[in-house]
Amino acid sequence: MRIGIVGATGAVGQETIQVLKDRRFPVTELHLFASERSAGKTTETAFGPVTIEAFSVEATRAMDIVFLAVSGDFAKEFAHAISSPGGAIVIDNSSAFRYDDAVPLVVPEINGRRALGQTLIANPNCTTAILLMALAPLHAEVGVKRAIVSTYQAASGAGAEGMTELAAGAREFLAGQPVTASKFAHPLAFNLIPHIDSFQDNGYTREEMKVLWETRKIMEAPEVLLSCTAVRVPTMRAHAEAVTIETLRPITPAAARAVLAEAAGVQVVDDPAAKLYPMPLTASTKYDVEVGRIRESLVFGDTGLDFFVCGDQLLKGAALNTVQIAEILI
Amino acid sequence: MRIGIVGATGAVGQETIQVLKDRRFPVTELHLFASERSAGKTTETAFGPVTIEAFSVEATRAMDIVFLAVSGDFAKEFAHAISSPGGAIVIDNSSAFRYDDAVPLVVPEINGRRALGQTLIANPNCTTAILLMALAPLHAEVGVKRAIVSTYQAASGAGAEGMTELAAGAREFLAGQPVTASKFAHPLAFNLIPHIDSFQDNGYTREEMKVLWETRKIMEAPEVLLSCTAVRVPTMRAHAEAVTIETLRPITPAAARAVLAEAAGVQVVDDPAAKLYPMPLTASTKYDVEVGRIRESLVFGDTGLDFFVCGDQLLKGAALNTVQIAEILI
Repeated sequence: MRIGIVGATGAVGQETIQVLKDRRFPVTELHLFASERSAGKTTETAFGPVTIEAFSVEATRAMDIVFLAVSGDFAKEFAHAISSPGGAIVIDNSSAFRYDDAVPLVVPEINGRRALGQTLIANPNCTTAILLMALAPLHAEVGVKRAIVSTYQAASGAGAEGMTELAAGAREFLAGQPVTASKFAHPLAFNLIPHIDSFQDNGYTREEMKVLWETRKIMEAPEVLLSCTAVRVPTMRAHAEAVTIETLRPITPAAARAVLAEAAGVQVVDDPAAKLYPMPLTASTKYDVEVGRIRESLVFGDTGLDFFVCGDQLLKGAALNTVQIAEILI
Repeated sequence: MRIGIVGATGAVGQETIQVLKDRRFPVTELHLFASERSAGKTTETAFGPVTIEAFSVEATRAMDIVFLAVSGDFAKEFAHAISSPGGAIVIDNSSAFRYDDAVPLVVPEINGRRALGQTLIANPNCTTAILLMALAPLHAEVGVKRAIVSTYQAASGAGAEGMTELAAGAREFLAGQPVTASKFAHPLAFNLIPHIDSFQDNGYTREEMKVLWETRKIMEAPEVLLSCTAVRVPTMRAHAEAVTIETLRPITPAAARAVLAEAAGVQVVDDPAAKLYPMPLTASTKYDVEVGRIRESLVFGDTGLDFFVCGDQLLKGAALNTVQIAEILI
C-alpha cells in the first residue's frame, strides 16, 4: 500500500514509520511529507532512505492511507480535501475531528468496527487512549458510573521539542542555572505543571475535558461521569494515570485483574511484593498499556476500584493506535 | 529555651534549625544530636557553629523541647524516656505515635489546642499535613464526605539522600548511563514510582493509609472516606496532590476560594489566565501551602470540588509544622 505520513519529522511521525515496520504493515511506497523547510532532505528510516516531500493535497490524495501527525488547524484545513471521494483514507492524530459526530474516534481494541468503511478517522487524545485500555473492559464488565483521573503526563506530549526542552532544563537545573521554558508554560525539569492545553470557562483545561468527551464517545456511554486533573511531569514518553472508579455493579480486585488480563493491548503489572507496578521506566517503548495497583476503593467500597495505568504516549497514545486503525482497514 | 534536635544532620533536622532561626524562636541553647559517627564534628548553623553530640536519653531530658527527626523505631524506643516527668517535651516527626490515642497528632492551624499541656506530640505525615491545610477549612465549612487524593511526592520524602539520588540519577540518565537506585525501589529520575512505604494486605501502601488514618484523627472526623494513590515523582522538595472531594453541603469554587483565602498557612494560587497555579517551582522553600485549580467536580456536581495543592515537604510537611507546635507550647 502507498502510505503517506504528514508531519513525518515530528516525534509521532517518526514513531509511526517505526511501528509500520515493526508490525510488518504492507507498505509498498512510503511518502514522507513535511514543511517546505524539510522538503528535499533525505532521511534514514526503517524502510531505507526516504526523501521528504513538500505537502500538497494532490500528492497525498494519491496515497492509499495518509497519517496526519500535525496540528488540529492543519488537519481542519486539509483532511477533507485529502479524503474526499477518489482520495486517500486519512487517519488524523489531532483533535480536529474527534468531536465531529460524522467522524469515528477509534481505539481498535474497543470500537475498531467503527473504522470500517470510513475515509476519515480520528485518533484519540493520548491520555484517553491509555486510560480506556483499562477503563473500557471494566465498563463492559460492571459499568462505570464515575471516574476520577489524575494524570502524570510526559514531555513527549509536547512533541520531540518537549523532550529536548526537558533534557536541556534538567541539565540547566543540575548546573545550578535558571531553567528556561518555551514549549511548556513553566520550566518542567524537577517541576510539575498542572496546565496542559488551554483553560476553559469551567476551570478545567481542554486536555482534561478531552478525556471526558472522548471517553463518552469511544465507550458510547454519554452517561459516564468523569473528572480529570491533567499534570505535566518531568518524564520523557510514558503517561501515567491514577484512576478511581465507582461501578454500577460490585467487582473485586481479583475479578478486575482477570478482566484486564484478558483484554487485548493490556499488561497487568500488579505484584507489589515483587515491586512490580506500572511505571514509565517499564512502559516506555512498550505496545501494551500497563495496569496495576488494582485495589478496592476506600471511598466506594465493593462498587469501586483504584488503579494505576502507564502507557507509552508516542505508541498507544499516538502512533501505534493510528497504525492499528490502518490495520483494520486493509 | 534549651532546644535539642535529634537527627540534626538529616534534611528535616537541618530545616528545623533554619526554621527556628527564621521564626525567631527563643532559643537559648541549641543542642544537636546525631549518630556516634557525626558526634564531635562541628557544624555551621544559623545560630553559629555547633558541635554535634552523641544522643543520650540523659542529655535530651535536660532540654526544654526536643525535636525527633529520626526513624519511627528510634522514636518508639526513646520518646517516652525523654518525655517522662522531669524530662523534655518531645515533638516527634516519625509515625511512631501518630495512631496512639494517648498522643495528639497536630497541625497547629487545625487542631493546635490538642498540643496544650502535652509532653509528647506527634507530627503528621508530610502528605497529610499539606493536604489538610486545604481540606480541613473546607471540611469545617461544608463537611467532606469523600476525598480522592493522588499524590506527586518529591524525593525529599526520602531525606537528603533521596534528593542526592535523584540528582545523581538525572545526571546518569542524561549521560545515557543506567540509573542506579538504593533509596528508592526503582530509579526515580525521569520515572514515577507508585510505591511509597510498605504494601498492606488491602493493596494500599502504608503511606496511602496514613493519609486516611491521620486525616480522620486530625480533623476528628472518623466518618470521612478517603482513598489515596501515593506516587513518588522526580521533583526535589515539594509534594503536590490532586484532590477530588464530595461535600455534604453545596459549595461553589468561588466560595471555596474565599474559605481558603481566610485560612492560615494557605496561599490561594488560582489564576489560570495568568498561568498561576500550585507548582513545586513556586511552593518550594515557602511556608504557605499553595492551593489552586479549584473547580466544580464533574463527578459530584455542586457538592464536589476538584483542586490541586502543593507544599514544601521539608517545611509544612515536617520542620515548619514541628516548630509551629513548639510555638504553641511556649
